[in-house]
Amino acid sequence: MMFPVSASVVIALLMGIVGGVFVLLELRRVLSYDQGNEAMQAIAKAIQKGSAAFLSREYRVIAIFVVIVATLISVLLQWQTAFCFVVGASASASAGCLGMYVAVRANVRTAAAAGRSLHEGLRVAFGSGSIMGMAVVSFSLIGMTVLFLIFNGSPSQLADIAGFGFGASSIALFARVGGGIYTKAADVGADLVGKVEQGIPEDDPRNPAVIADNVGDNVGDVAGMGADLFESYSGSIIATATLGAALGAKSSAFIGLPFLIAAVGIVASLFGIYIVIGKQKKQSSSSESKIARFIEQYRITIDENASLDDLLAALRHSVWGASMLILGLSLIAVLISGISFNYWLVILTGLIAGNAIAYVTEYYTAYTEKPTQAIARATQTGAATTIIQGLAVGMISTVFPVLIVATVILLSIGLGYAADGTMAAGLYAVALAAVGMLSTLGVTLATDAYGPVADNAGGIAEMSHLPSEVRHRTDALDSLGNTTAATGKGFAIGSAVLTALALLAAYVTAAKIYSLNILGATLLPGILIGAMMPYLFSALTMRAVGRAAHKIVIEVRRQFHEIPGLMDGTGQPDYETCVGICTESALREMVLPGALAVIVPLVVGNILGKEALAGMLVGAMSSGFLLAVMMANAGGAWDNAKKWIETGQYGGKGSDCHKAAVVGDTVGDPFKDTSGPSLNILINLMSIVSLVFATSFGSGWFGF
Amino acid sequence: MMFPVSASVVIALLMGIVGGVFVLLELRRVLSYDQGNEAMQAIAKAIQKGSAAFLSREYRVIAIFVVIVATLISVLLQWQTAFCFVVGASASASAGCLGMYVAVRANVRTAAAAGRSLHEGLRVAFGSGSIMGMAVVSFSLIGMTVLFLIFNGSPSQLADIAGFGFGASSIALFARVGGGIYTKAADVGADLVGKVEQGIPEDDPRNPAVIADNVGDNVGDVAGMGADLFESYSGSIIATATLGAALGAKSSAFIGLPFLIAAVGIVASLFGIYIVIGKQKKQSSSSESKIARFIEQYRITIDENASLDDLLAALRHSVWGASMLILGLSLIAVLISGISFNYWLVILTGLIAGNAIAYVTEYYTAYTEKPTQAIARATQTGAATTIIQGLAVGMISTVFPVLIVATVILLSIGLGYAADGTMAAGLYAVALAAVGMLSTLGVTLATDAYGPVADNAGGIAEMSHLPSEVRHRTDALDSLGNTTAATGKGFAIGSAVLTALALLAAYVTAAKIYSLNILGATLLPGILIGAMMPYLFSALTMRAVGRAAHKIVIEVRRQFHEIPGLMDGTGQPDYETCVGICTESALREMVLPGALAVIVPLVVGNILGKEALAGMLVGAMSSGFLLAVMMANAGGAWDNAKKWIETGQYGGKGSDCHKAAVVGDTVGDPFKDTSGPSLNILINLMSIVSLVFATSFGSGWFGF
Repeated sequence: MMFPVSASVVIALLMGIVGGVFVLLELRRVLSYDQGNEAMQAIAKAIQKGSAAFLSREYRVIAIFVVIVATLISVLLQWQTAFCFVVGASASASAGCLGMYVAVRANVRTAAAAGRSLHEGLRVAFGSGSIMGMAVVSFSLIGMTVLFLIFNGSPSQLADIAGFGFGASSIALFARVGGGIYTKAADVGADLVGKVEQGIPEDDPRNPAVIADNVGDNVGDVAGMGADLFESYSGSIIATATLGAALGAKSSAFIGLPFLIAAVGIVASLFGIYIVIGKQKKQSSSSESKIARFIEQYRITIDENASLDDLLAALRHSVWGASMLILGLSLIAVLISGISFNYWLVILTGLIAGNAIAYVTEYYTAYTEKPTQAIARATQTGAATTIIQGLAVGMISTVFPVLIVATVILLSIGLGYAADGTMAAGLYAVALAAVGMLSTLGVTLATDAYGPVADNAGGIAEMSHLPSEVRHRTDALDSLGNTTAATGKGFAIGSAVLTALALLAAYVTAAKIYSLNILGATLLPGILIGAMMPYLFSALTMRAVGRAAHKIVIEVRRQFHEIPGLMDGTGQPDYETCVGICTESALREMVLPGALAVIVPLVVGNILGKEALAGMLVGAMSSGFLLAVMMANAGGAWDNAKKWIETGQYGGKGSDCHKAAVVGDTVGDPFKDTSGPSLNILINLMSIVSLVFATSFGSGWFGF
Repeated sequence: MMFPVSASVVIALLMGIVGGVFVLLELRRVLSYDQGNEAMQAIAKAIQKGSAAFLSREYRVIAIFVVIVATLISVLLQWQTAFCFVVGASASASAGCLGMYVAVRANVRTAAAAGRSLHEGLRVAFGSGSIMGMAVVSFSLIGMTVLFLIFNGSPSQLADIAGFGFGASSIALFARVGGGIYTKAADVGADLVGKVEQGIPEDDPRNPAVIADNVGDNVGDVAGMGADLFESYSGSIIATATLGAALGAKSSAFIGLPFLIAAVGIVASLFGIYIVIGKQKKQSSSSESKIARFIEQYRITIDENASLDDLLAALRHSVWGASMLILGLSLIAVLISGISFNYWLVILTGLIAGNAIAYVTEYYTAYTEKPTQAIARATQTGAATTIIQGLAVGMISTVFPVLIVATVILLSIGLGYAADGTMAAGLYAVALAAVGMLSTLGVTLATDAYGPVADNAGGIAEMSHLPSEVRHRTDALDSLGNTTAATGKGFAIGSAVLTALALLAAYVTAAKIYSLNILGATLLPGILIGAMMPYLFSALTMRAVGRAAHKIVIEVRRQFHEIPGLMDGTGQPDYETCVGICTESALREMVLPGALAVIVPLVVGNILGKEALAGMLVGAMSSGFLLAVMMANAGGAWDNAKKWIETGQYGGKGSDCHKAAVVGDTVGDPFKDTSGPSLNILINLMSIVSLVFATSFGSGWFGF
């Protein structure tokens, strides 16, 4: 029996709605927490205001872009694709707004809850993260399935839905780049004057850039990361479905499978989230079922004496539990779809690979491990050797992720080929591996998006002078967030490469390219241009951070100089000007890189032809993957080398070694939070632009 | 009439011998100069001793490698290839030894000659550079042509001669990596303790690492650069001839053409060298021919008042004159070969592209231009922003080189295709463009290899307390060398990519790969692994520099601490221990990266199959090109930003801005002199290993 595609899509839609309902319920729960004292609320209000101001202005700029591109699509292609584009952009933007809305309200509630207990603090912060995580997967799934049902049966149905991915990727790029520039400009600016020049601690309310810094954590790590994974998630499902459509007799099952996997992913994610935030029972009642009792035993109890390891174990149990559940449920999905068991192995491969990359990332960036400690040791001979060592760590950290992804590609193609005997089945399997890798997104994103909430909570506790035990608890939550962030990055990078490869395969099919000989006339120039794009893009974003941070430094210096009594606490800093400068700079600077990502594929496709464009995507994918991993891991390792020294190694805080480490950390900031993560989106956006416009490219001006 | 291939080869051999005779005559001329006073001779002796010690130990290590690989080739392939491999390695090593031999003797003679006049100084230093330049092209050409004639008519003739390229590339890699580690370890070590900790000037004889530093200039920039371009030059000719052999009826002319171009290149280079070092006549005698008078007018007169611009003009006239001559002579070569005029246009394209890349390199690294000044400006906010800005400049500087190379590929393929109607002709044309780009190598390498001689001469003048006017003149010669070095790097990088592409095409032909679909199962994993190799390689070499420099720092500190009277000049520093440490470290550290470059292609070719290996070469080529340009230009820009500040900008020497600039310069040292330039060789060596072993690879373990 062949499982009908519409049944899979309807199941996915229903699960998407379930996820949406969870988002609403959880939103009510998180907002029901108390907001602490007046000082805390005043700070929270300032952060909320700054975030809202940035988001509304950012979305206004993006709206212009969306209108222009939608018009272009309508004229060049068809209105259906333009419509899907707008829906994709809107769905992603809505998830981002909602995530931000709750994050800037959960921060103060987390600080207040942490005053009562560690687990209460975790429940609020993680609740906020889970709202973001579930909103991303639900909104994406609802959007795609509804569009699928609307256009059901139309011949260009899947090409139209690629428009949804295009919309999602566009938002992602702007959110990542804009948010990334904002957060690092504020961070670097605040640190350079506050910590280095004036010698006041981090998160000190006297620093005029402190609110901008806190806003930045949210616009970068919540809205940016959310939109990033929204596009990877959507892109992987679209690419898989598109490739599945070309698989002949069983295509109905193949198109439906990614939707089914996504649907079971929502169930599993909800389970994972419950593991962390469900109310902990004092005693198990006898009326409980066996399953409920088993689950309770599986959960880690978090009490006041819980160490970082306990908290980490709680989150790990959450993600692992979700993964196990997905493996079980997806086996059922594969079996009822009536396709080969091999495809379940592919999903398993994707899940394992995601975790393996995350493990490698952690190894190269944790200060308990050799690579980061080698950076700390290099601080003894100054800033230059610290930088050289950090870059070397970043570069060498690319080896295993590359080998892991290469293995996934080989295994997936091999399993798909073995099952259905065609190369097309093999490429479908690669795409499916990406879906597998991202299937736990609802909960992995929750562990990620919870970090900035905890970070903000710590800032609020500091600024409103809460008792040190509160700050101690928020610090524990914050450290936990830093560790889990590495996991999120591993998944983001690994899935981006697989998705880009799947989109490339979909593009090649859609553009009717029958031979893609690497020694063709235009392919190699295309590859070189593609390999250059991540460098150009990184240069633009790094310079943007530098320029914006420079402006903040000048403004903060001016305020310390001109506002009387600022240092002794009698004068009031002007937070809003700093927030305004960050907003202005981020918005202005995000336009050029964003536009380039859309325009370059169109130019290459039209001038050099469709084969060159395929080459460009391959070049961008390989070069971007390497550069992204290098930047992310070097940045993370520098950050943690500094933290390692701050634990008292090599003279501790204030020593010459610490100063050298701070230089490394500052170089690493735009690496890990602006340029590096944007590259994932760059390669996916260029791939999806190519896919959407695939039919409009010819053989180019050269014609050979 | 078809020009017979053996005639071209014999002409090339004769011209190679002419070049060899020039080398001997010029060697006699340079060595006939006086060696200055006793103090100068003592310093020169120490440098000579250190260099000889390093070279003899380096070649002993390389000899072991050569014996192992030659045995492997004999067993796996055939003895003829192994023989060519040994000849290639020996020819490259001989050119390198000779270049070093004269460089470490010309330095002291340059210092003495600079005591008489600027032009005399230039004549000695440039004479030394031209010996290196002409030795490289002559030895390469003699070696290849003799082997060609020995194996004439044998079916695997060209495959055997590829072994020559393999030998040359192996030497190049070890010379570049070993020399690069040596020179930067000594440089960084000497600076960190001498300049920074003890506050003594550069090239101060009290610094125990000063001799090692001077030896390093020679082993890195003379022997390393020479071997690097030896392999590019040989590789481009081998690749072109190999591709020419597949071109059917006219293949005899196509195989012969690169040899003819190389032959006219020697004539043109000799002309270019004469422009600079010929004795300047006071008055033109009436007995002179018109041509001789025209040449005399073309030459720039260098008198005592000559500015840097005059010197630069003299070198430019030299290179441009040689280029013009090549264009004229190669037109004749193309016409008598009886092939399309289009191929002359290809050579023209290659020559123009080489100069264009050099121009871009100069723009991004000269301190008179915006990019480097932006780095100098960034020093105001500290070391971190200096690093970020420098990396951004390096990244953005990749854009034009990529576009230039992409254009050369497109134009060459287009011109070749238009002439002979096959893709094979197009790929032949790409290889020919590389030959065109490198045809002026005899003279461009002279302008490059002359730099370290002038640099050493300055050091000797400083250490032996010569009058300040002498130091002033050697400084002028040194600045000139720094400027022309950028040109050399442009040619090295551009030609390396084209050569690698040509070798890839030759490999694909030799491995009998008929379809190279980018979406094949193993191609993309291959591309990713290839793209990773330059990162792994750079990480290894950067860490090696760091470790070696660390040892030097400890030793220099020890000597300052333990040797009584070292600072006030009454104690004698122990130069030899520093030289020994550099030698030890460089030799130990060069083994792993060198072995990787040979082993990885063999592993990938055997396990993943021959298509994956082709993918790996493409990935390595694109990723390595970008990383090499980025590192070279970022390094050059940091260096010059520091020099710009030293002219008095932003507080000049000793200011906080200068300290930040020094950090940038130190990070840039391994970038521009160790890791960056090694990448060119890495991609060529991996390509030529693949070509040599092409017939031994199957479809790999996966078999799809």
